[in-house]
Amino acid sequence: MTRDSSQVSQARHDLSRLLAPSAIALVGASSNAQVTSGQPLRYMKEFGYAGKLYPVNPKRKEVQGIQCYERVLAIPQACDVAVITVAAPHVPGILRECGIAHIPFAVVLSAGFEEIGVAGLPLQQQLQQAIADSGVRVVGPNSTGVVNLRCRAYCAQGGALADATLQPGPVAVVAQSGGVGLSMLSFIESAGIGVSYLVSSGNEIDLDVFDFADYLLGDPDVWIIALYLESSTDGRKMRALGRRALELGKPVVVLKAGNAGTARSAASSHTGRLTADYALFRTAFREGGYVEAGDIGELVDLVAALQGKLRPAGTRAALLTTSGGWGVMIAEQCEQHGLSFPPLAERTLAELRHLAPSYAALGNPVDLTPQGYKDQYASYNEITGHLLADPGIDLVIVRSATGSDIGTWANRLVEIAQASGKPVLVNWAPPAHRYNDVKQRLQRQGIPCFSYVGQIARVAAACVDFSSKLRRIQEVPGTPHAVAAPARATLELRGALGESAAMECLRAYGIAVAKGKLLRLDQLERPELEGFRFPVAVKVESAELTHKTEAGGVVLNVNDAAGVTAAARRILERTRAHAPKAVVNGILVQEMASGLEVILGAVSDPHFGPFVMFGIGGIFAEVMRDVSYRFSPVTESEAFAMIQEVRGRRLLDSVRGLPGRDVNAVAAAIVNLSRLITDHQHEISEIEINPLIVGAAGEGVTAADCLVTVKPRCASERAKS
Amino acid sequence: MTRDSSQVSQARHDLSRLLAPSAIALVGASSNAQVTSGQPLRYMKEFGYAGKLYPVNPKRKEVQGIQCYERVLAIPQACDVAVITVAAPHVPGILRECGIAHIPFAVVLSAGFEEIGVAGLPLQQQLQQAIADSGVRVVGPNSTGVVNLRCRAYCAQGGALADATLQPGPVAVVAQSGGVGLSMLSFIESAGIGVSYLVSSGNEIDLDVFDFADYLLGDPDVWIIALYLESSTDGRKMRALGRRALELGKPVVVLKAGNAGTARSAASSHTGRLTADYALFRTAFREGGYVEAGDIGELVDLVAALQGKLRPAGTRAALLTTSGGWGVMIAEQCEQHGLSFPPLAERTLAELRHLAPSYAALGNPVDLTPQGYKDQYASYNEITGHLLADPGIDLVIVRSATGSDIGTWANRLVEIAQASGKPVLVNWAPPAHRYNDVKQRLQRQGIPCFSYVGQIARVAAACVDFSSKLRRIQEVPGTPHAVAAPARATLELRGALGESAAMECLRAYGIAVAKGKLLRLDQLERPELEGFRFPVAVKVESAELTHKTEAGGVVLNVNDAAGVTAAARRILERTRAHAPKAVVNGILVQEMASGLEVILGAVSDPHFGPFVMFGIGGIFAEVMRDVSYRFSPVTESEAFAMIQEVRGRRLLDSVRGLPGRDVNAVAAAIVNLSRLITDHQHEISEIEINPLIVGAAGEGVTAADCLVTVKPRCASERAKS
Repeated sequence: MTRDSSQVSQARHDLSRLLAPSAIALVGASSNAQVTSGQPLRYMKEFGYAGKLYPVNPKRKEVQGIQCYERVLAIPQACDVAVITVAAPHVPGILRECGIAHIPFAVVLSAGFEEIGVAGLPLQQQLQQAIADSGVRVVGPNSTGVVNLRCRAYCAQGGALADATLQPGPVAVVAQSGGVGLSMLSFIESAGIGVSYLVSSGNEIDLDVFDFADYLLGDPDVWIIALYLESSTDGRKMRALGRRALELGKPVVVLKAGNAGTARSAASSHTGRLTADYALFRTAFREGGYVEAGDIGELVDLVAALQGKLRPAGTRAALLTTSGGWGVMIAEQCEQHGLSFPPLAERTLAELRHLAPSYAALGNPVDLTPQGYKDQYASYNEITGHLLADPGIDLVIVRSATGSDIGTWANRLVEIAQASGKPVLVNWAPPAHRYNDVKQRLQRQGIPCFSYVGQIARVAAACVDFSSKLRRIQEVPGTPHAVAAPARATLELRGALGESAAMECLRAYGIAVAKGKLLRLDQLERPELEGFRFPVAVKVESAELTHKTEAGGVVLNVNDAAGVTAAARRILERTRAHAPKAVVNGILVQEMASGLEVILGAVSDPHFGPFVMFGIGGIFAEVMRDVSYRFSPVTESEAFAMIQEVRGRRLLDSVRGLPGRDVNAVAAAIVNLSRLITDHQHEISEIEINPLIVGAAGEGVTAADCLVTVKPRCASERAKS
Repeated sequence: MTRDSSQVSQARHDLSRLLAPSAIALVGASSNAQVTSGQPLRYMKEFGYAGKLYPVNPKRKEVQGIQCYERVLAIPQACDVAVITVAAPHVPGILRECGIAHIPFAVVLSAGFEEIGVAGLPLQQQLQQAIADSGVRVVGPNSTGVVNLRCRAYCAQGGALADATLQPGPVAVVAQSGGVGLSMLSFIESAGIGVSYLVSSGNEIDLDVFDFADYLLGDPDVWIIALYLESSTDGRKMRALGRRALELGKPVVVLKAGNAGTARSAASSHTGRLTADYALFRTAFREGGYVEAGDIGELVDLVAALQGKLRPAGTRAALLTTSGGWGVMIAEQCEQHGLSFPPLAERTLAELRHLAPSYAALGNPVDLTPQGYKDQYASYNEITGHLLADPGIDLVIVRSATGSDIGTWANRLVEIAQASGKPVLVNWAPPAHRYNDVKQRLQRQGIPCFSYVGQIARVAAACVDFSSKLRRIQEVPGTPHAVAAPARATLELRGALGESAAMECLRAYGIAVAKGKLLRLDQLERPELEGFRFPVAVKVESAELTHKTEAGGVVLNVNDAAGVTAAARRILERTRAHAPKAVVNGILVQEMASGLEVILGAVSDPHFGPFVMFGIGGIFAEVMRDVSYRFSPVTESEAFAMIQEVRGRRLLDSVRGLPGRDVNAVAAAIVNLSRLITDHQHEISEIEINPLIVGAAGEGVTAADCLVTVKPRCASERAKS
């Protein structure tokens, strides 16, 4: 993960003057405190911003009781930020003035640019030019602004901000939609968790969400970023942010929308067709310090749990309830999310027997039944403490008390949890709005509370997953699998590659290929096939016929040399009918391997960099979209993880009396393919091995067909040379 | 769905005296109003139960201020219900007394029976005998009780009931866990929706959740049932409840836990192995008026939406927002759940152009931008009205107003929605606890409000699905596909069936099978295979070798008669080594069909009745668990729906240049197989066709292998005859 970080790391922008400004120009500020252009000034006055405020409006002497300036250049001091709310056509001119006035940042709330479609493009371009000319860094346009709730700097508009009770806290919200960002702020605050920063990136003509998130990660008071993402053309920047988040141990909880776009139709291989952009976003999320939420509700839950710094050391949970039904539901859903509920240590059980009522079920889950807790939950808490002390338990999930003893229970629980140092999650029993103060107290002490089973399961799994990522970056990366590859120079790329050339590439990187021989057209009548093991496959070899089967260019299960001649004739007839002008280089004869078919792919993605793909069953992988991805290069342990991720992985085990498959060889092939695409990411656009035949354990793998697509520019350059 | 209803319909119990009692005996009532045995009396006194209350406790003259009786038989009138809270060992005796006193129902809150494990079994059996002897119908034991909030009859305990503000409403809660039932009551009430009944079925020694739900469905004031289910051994009763719910148009929102149990290991076919019980529960849910929730949170959402009687006529939604980001997220998730956002009618767009601001995006979703609604959302509401009036729109999703105009907006929205008669769902914008009164007013008027995107998508999809089920039961069922089958008498079942006998069963029901010939062992040297098209498959025929491939009993792709002889020799060698004592009936030679492999299965389930299964790709279907189920018999349209349900359905389309497959023939085979298992459900336990080879469109299907397992009892009976 850290291997190529130097390559993709970005220059970090110093956004301190933007995010903690001492003096702010408000260009276009209105005296109507309700409208967009009046809101920033109103909020800063009302909620106590301590810096200097300079309204700019040529029509007025004062705005909302504050002295007003005719133009930016008339302001008597250098401001840190200009908040621009004038009509769109005036924005580029204002920006140039800001440049002259040495204002380093502008927050453009004005709309009417790219986001309104073609009509807005000319203005967007003028604004781009003004940025280049002035050197002013811009947030927006069409942003709802930037808020720092610590210093009450509201360079922003939005009804949700008109709330005097908002308290700063460990969360920073960064959003590609102003409306969604404001909702995230509201919902997170409603859950009792403070937000210090809200940034709406608008059209991102200059600074984007990754710039903001990257800067905010460095703020010691920010423990967690909540990110709303619709699209990005800079996958490498996104990956770099993910790496930094892991390095700092701070999660970026991300909600990604706009994923419904179908796979890229232009891609020529199945790997390409299988790879919608969203799969690469998810691969980047998995790789880095991101935690993906499926919905704003889930995002709020994840923020609530992760800001509490719940970092379980493993997946082993203990569950304590007062209701058997809740125990069944929580354990079941948590197990579906990868947690386990192992048996408790004998010593723990012995302690529990002293404390629990006789009719309690002392397994894991522990069900203490709903029969009264007349000791104000003292023994219930004591049991929680013993579960936390069990050396085989990484986290404890406790169903909350109910009724008037809940405060006593909660206070003692906080002490016990803090003493243990292990994470505690609470299944909150009271209905909404009852004992909310107790709930928020627990949450502020790092014990998140959730009413619903699905919330607990998802949040617990996310915390376990984030912790395991943190542990993984501290490990020494695994040695890449040894490749019996000749020097890189032996790999000679030639135009669009025919199958035998493609096979050469694989062989050069240590991937075994089916034994084959390319017969010239004049060798077909008496093919020399000494030493070949029949049956063989007979295939057309032509760089122009990449989909050989569809072109009638493949005959399988040929049993002798005479059969090869007959098959070759049929193939030449059919492919001529299919594509009369295609240049045929010969006929490829290949030994047929038998085993389980899998698909391996590699793509050099222009936005995210090179990646590899794995799936089981060729056409099944394609149709079921049951494939896994990693960015290249991958280590052997990552390759094993890719194999584990697909639903069809059981086909590699011993099923229906067939022997287990050579999983080690599959992992090695993934590692080698990832090195091939990494080394040649600037020349090769796609590689697909379909199928790779997987033999029984110890028997290895064999590439039975391979397609390598070379980048057009590169192919033509080589043609010239 | 209605075809075999007479066969599985249940006797309905008259539970009116249990659920609306006029006189209640409280056996074991405590003067401590806090403990379990004191709570029923306390709640009824405190919350105004108007019937007669008779505490029974030999130690006291009065309990909680009410005259107490020494024993049940001393009560001066015939009670409707006895609430029993005495220690478990006394319960059977009390029940016998109730019988003598002509009390028809007992609610047993006492615990210490089956639920505590082996130690409780003797008491459970004694209780069972007391029920048989006394004729008293029992709820529980280990129940938290039965509550009727309309008449304030609290034959129940539980802290959540100690809430004077609980208001009766259209929901009835029925639960197999008392703790979960109480939580459901609390959460539904918190969402502003009234619950009239709460029934905890406890150990279900007599009455079960389906008895309660069935009775409550008939109550005109109950519009919806919320059901918590862990297990049931009476699938037919569950299916009957689902049918009745559809007939009455009342949804049963069901939360099913305890599904993690693995597939039945005893089953001999892959169909059986693929069928965990949960799959049959889900099939029953899909078939009937059930709406499945994944979590209590989702259950509450579904209850909130479905009690509002949202019954969209189709999947076509219009979406109106004030935020582009929210529009993207809602549309995307709704589309993933099967809703569509079609273009609006030209006439609708014309109306919108008059009303919307110039910078609004007038597609579907309609994004009106957050720019002020100075007319108190009058035009926003008017636009909502035009969307509802669009003839191409079945339901409208509206993002709510925010701020102080929200009440005005809501009042007008209710008028507009009611005038249109179409369903409206609201995406609620304010943070929790703001404007809760407005939200609850909307919900009571049948306009459910949800803050999160996932809630809206799931709920909208569930409403659409429930409506389509209601429409489907009103349709005339499709004519089953014509079967070119001989009379039933021709199907002669003989013990465990060898393949050629199994193939006969299929042929008798119009399912085409591979052309085959069973060679006697003395025919193997010179097999007569005139008219056979090669290649052929050669297989061992033995009722004792059901897994032929694992036994080495199959050779594929044999090209001539000599090859058949050689293959047969190899097979006999291998199978003898594998199972020396297996009786071999001969060697089966079959033409090999080429095409796509699918799997068809049928099982006669002892709890749910006969069902069929469909999956694509043989071993892939098994490993991926990508299969669909229906109870038998199925109509042709249900068969097509089964095909549509599997993820791999795209393999039946034209993929990778191959022609589309004969889907009609697959559907016909499913229908015919479902008739075979229905006709012979008492004799056949399982049938599996694996693979069924699907030819190109028009070419039909061919069963290439088939396993029929006859029920043991039946087989032995036939062996005798």
